[in-house]
Amino acid sequence: MSKAVFYHAGCPVCVDAEQMVLGYLDKTKVDAKIVHLGTDRGRIEEAEKVGVKSVPALVIDGNVYHINFGASLEDVKKG
Amino acid sequence: MSKAVFYHAGCPVCVDAEQMVLGYLDKTKVDAKIVHLGTDRGRIEEAEKVGVKSVPALVIDGNVYHINFGASLEDVKKG
Repeated sequence: MSKAVFYHAGCPVCVDAEQMVLGYLDKTKVDAKIVHLGTDRGRIEEAEKVGVKSVPALVIDGNVYHINFGASLEDVKKG
Repeated sequence: MSKAVFYHAGCPVCVDAEQMVLGYLDKTKVDAKIVHLGTDRGRIEEAEKVGVKSVPALVIDGNVYHINFGASLEDVKKG
């Protein structure tokens, strides 16, 4: 089972991408957790460490997939 | 069953994203086709019409998800 984390910040682009992640990822292969960096700000550093540059981003087994573009992590920090 | 098309152009970023699409999308929910715009150039116009701006991009039921950034369609046209 692969480990996945979907980082987002509640922006409209993030919500669209979350639909794709929750709706279409194969739950028999991927255990996906959702992290809202706008409210769970203590995890921004963790996101940066794994290579997340912007949200929404999906990290599967250490591979980072930035999906469309909602906000940079720098903007999330200011928010 | 949702219809999905993954547009790419063979770039390294595209190959990484293709792994995610082929490996983790739920095949019971999504019928995913792969289109290589570098070799199947006649479909560049179709990609533009559905809203693809860069590759790799995954289009599911009309929703466009640009994944990371490999190349703009303008660059694919030049190539």
